[in-house]
Amino acid sequence: MNGADSLIRTSVEGGIEVCFANPGTTEMHLVAALDQNPGIRAVLGLFEGVCTGAADGYGRMAGRPAATLLHLGPGLANGIANLHNARRARTPIVNWIGDQASWHLAADAPLTSDIESLARTVGWVRENKSAAELARDGAETIGAALSAPGQVATLVVPADCAWDEAPGPVQTAAPEAPAPVAEAQLVATASALSQPGALLFLGGSALGEAGLRAAQRIAAGTGCRVLSETFSARTEIGHGLPVAAPLPYFPEQGREALAAATNVVLAGALDPVAFFGYPGQASRLLGDDQVLSVLAEPGDDAIGALEAIAERVGKDAPLEERPRAEVGSGALTVGSLGQTLAALLPEQAIVVNEAATTGLAFNAFAPSAAPHTSLGLTGGAIGQGLPCAVGAAIACPDRPVVAFQADGSGLYTLQALWTMARESLDVVVVVCANRVYRILQAELARAGVMEPGPKAQSLTDLGNPNIDWVAAAKAFGVPGVAVDDSAAFADAFRRALAEPGPQLIEAILQG
Amino acid sequence: MNGADSLIRTSVEGGIEVCFANPGTTEMHLVAALDQNPGIRAVLGLFEGVCTGAADGYGRMAGRPAATLLHLGPGLANGIANLHNARRARTPIVNWIGDQASWHLAADAPLTSDIESLARTVGWVRENKSAAELARDGAETIGAALSAPGQVATLVVPADCAWDEAPGPVQTAAPEAPAPVAEAQLVATASALSQPGALLFLGGSALGEAGLRAAQRIAAGTGCRVLSETFSARTEIGHGLPVAAPLPYFPEQGREALAAATNVVLAGALDPVAFFGYPGQASRLLGDDQVLSVLAEPGDDAIGALEAIAERVGKDAPLEERPRAEVGSGALTVGSLGQTLAALLPEQAIVVNEAATTGLAFNAFAPSAAPHTSLGLTGGAIGQGLPCAVGAAIACPDRPVVAFQADGSGLYTLQALWTMARESLDVVVVVCANRVYRILQAELARAGVMEPGPKAQSLTDLGNPNIDWVAAAKAFGVPGVAVDDSAAFADAFRRALAEPGPQLIEAILQG
Repeated sequence: MNGADSLIRTSVEGGIEVCFANPGTTEMHLVAALDQNPGIRAVLGLFEGVCTGAADGYGRMAGRPAATLLHLGPGLANGIANLHNARRARTPIVNWIGDQASWHLAADAPLTSDIESLARTVGWVRENKSAAELARDGAETIGAALSAPGQVATLVVPADCAWDEAPGPVQTAAPEAPAPVAEAQLVATASALSQPGALLFLGGSALGEAGLRAAQRIAAGTGCRVLSETFSARTEIGHGLPVAAPLPYFPEQGREALAAATNVVLAGALDPVAFFGYPGQASRLLGDDQVLSVLAEPGDDAIGALEAIAERVGKDAPLEERPRAEVGSGALTVGSLGQTLAALLPEQAIVVNEAATTGLAFNAFAPSAAPHTSLGLTGGAIGQGLPCAVGAAIACPDRPVVAFQADGSGLYTLQALWTMARESLDVVVVVCANRVYRILQAELARAGVMEPGPKAQSLTDLGNPNIDWVAAAKAFGVPGVAVDDSAAFADAFRRALAEPGPQLIEAILQG
Repeated sequence: MNGADSLIRTSVEGGIEVCFANPGTTEMHLVAALDQNPGIRAVLGLFEGVCTGAADGYGRMAGRPAATLLHLGPGLANGIANLHNARRARTPIVNWIGDQASWHLAADAPLTSDIESLARTVGWVRENKSAAELARDGAETIGAALSAPGQVATLVVPADCAWDEAPGPVQTAAPEAPAPVAEAQLVATASALSQPGALLFLGGSALGEAGLRAAQRIAAGTGCRVLSETFSARTEIGHGLPVAAPLPYFPEQGREALAAATNVVLAGALDPVAFFGYPGQASRLLGDDQVLSVLAEPGDDAIGALEAIAERVGKDAPLEERPRAEVGSGALTVGSLGQTLAALLPEQAIVVNEAATTGLAFNAFAPSAAPHTSLGLTGGAIGQGLPCAVGAAIACPDRPVVAFQADGSGLYTLQALWTMARESLDVVVVVCANRVYRILQAELARAGVMEPGPKAQSLTDLGNPNIDWVAAAKAFGVPGVAVDDSAAFADAFRRALAEPGPQLIEAILQG
């Protein structure tokens, strides 16, 4: 076998089941090896940002890495924005980047560039040096991706190492389980959470059902409040589940939400900071007089730690009463759209929320929806939603996926619609068409520009001409419909859920 | 004034007239400064690859840099593929990247990443450290972009440096003229080109009209052959202009074209190498027994040097007779499309050729077309054509622009269609819809995969479903039509040229 075969066999045995690919010449032997060595589903993306975003969505849902197959430095560069989001989500991803043949690098051919520097910005990198070491490097790349809490791991494969003869596959070492949180830390945290003004701040794996239930028992037993990070990789939410409200996005509101806390305990979350710096404001949202302690870093066993504390100081208590969301009425607004979506969301849906300002508003309705999984924009690099929905749908073919999508962000990687069509994925895309970069208009005002000039208006406006999302869907083979009132949205959403394969609804917002 | 004002004023005075932008929160003060300090046209791209590709097209045609305005590391990353092409084209470009406020970097907020490492992969980088130095840094960034032969220059602007108070603008130093080629080199080259089997190999600025005419006089006087680099940033071509045929793309054919050369002189071009390495083949296309000499490196005065040599050993001679291309007939094929395009191309058109395999075939017809400017895919990073056409049209509003576009590549940055519509640019987009990555199918065969398996087929196929380019154009506000025979293409192309604003023709290839 050649190096490519040894890598693919190693990866099949190491648990890789899907490869999101847009290959070029330097990846042809790897492409051939995917046919020669069964076990990996090959999914074409029309742009690399689709591949990396899909791998992120897959990894968040599957808990193990998909592979991507990308062409040289420019192919990787096109995928970096969504790898950045994956880095912040701590999603395990394996990137295979074909490089020039090792002896051809010195020729500095037109497509040659510094792949390693690009890859380093989003995580772990291994540059393979020979066909003989390719299987080992492949196994170690999977191991790196899976090392707690999960990361983006890139393997650079020179073309000659793919085509040269190689020994067989090697076994991938099982990842180490995260270390349990130390007894002393459990004791200290149980005590801290029992103080008046205590706040339990959840993130990462703590936002799964087990972590949320343990946190709720702790809150019932100690009286502490529970909040969560603003944008989480994956949260279980909806009726029957305890709520850990996300910290508001804008820092003034975030500070306000945290102001009453005297003792803050982090479980899987980081010390909360503002998304951006603003004149006269600190980076941290907590003040120096607020006592901060860390129960579990993102790579630690946050769930085990929360359950251990719940054993000590927790109490079983019924969940607060929450009415079911109801279908909205009248013109379609941020509020009525969110309300209707929450009302009609099917059980076990996966909601990929890249709806920006509309998505922040949806946070208020999500707890009143049927229980579902929410995947958020962890790294702020827009263009994540549609690709992430592709990956989530491939990881969970039996669950309905809703891509709740801002229009400006969705335009970054709209090519994902085509992969949804080709793979017949059950994704309902809801495009929140407000036809502006609304969040930037808010930021302009925050920067003191109360009356934007024509250039500022032009650079934050998606009109002139308006995007025709139904035509865009048609271009990529996805049925679409546009609606501008709540009843029509409700009808369209019900119909879309009932149809197999992808469906797009352009929700034209009236306010 | 604040730092942003001082940067924009400095840049207006330094010759920046256009900014291709997709800003975010950290760029809001720069956006406001574009309104406060007149002189720079702000053009929104829906994706950063559109902005950087447009800046490349603008710079190639204008000979001076446009600015881009991109959001943090992910925004830059999205633009890197087309900056890679610009690096290979040696196009002057100024990137302004807003960074987190300097004091906010330590907080490692979600959108924070290593901007400098990303930018370094495509050229020169300056990280601004204070508002007081922002004007100076801005001027030096323009100077770096313009330093011969031209390069991508990136200025990282921390948000606080944009909003803090700053002194006024500073003057941008004029770029140094390239040094003239030394007398001894002229003498040696004149002698080398007079030997039997001499070949003059042109690239860069030598492919403008002056360089081509000087090369033709040299060829007439010495009997040397003239060839040019395979993908050039900008070539003048067509009736009334001397031909410097581009070296064929595949290395076997490239070697064959060079085989008879005993003496090769480079003028603005690099020692030709294969695009990719293949087993058993060398990187260089010239053999060690072929004598290579360099008349002018890319940054040198290639035109002056060629003219000086033409003075010594050149001769005025009529151009070879070339028939005008004629409109093709029958089913639309790679050949009939190229022929018809050449027949109908208006004088002074700018042809952005990212038509991949169809574009390589067009090379045979281009010399028989009306005189036009051809802009090529210098770095091999696909997704360059449509954005480049945007920039060329903005640089040259009085010239018709034809985006001759492969379908697979065009899908990378199809959002450029919207900017064409918003800015009412006179661009005719001709999509060569063969519905496969044809060049990869050829490369699979070259890799020995004569009967591709289902995964290799799937990963090189753009069908299932087919892309509807007319719908894609409609989505972005561009009128479109699909054709599949030569007469219909000719009609559609004539009509499209006659209409103002962008037009798209999906040319469905039958072979």
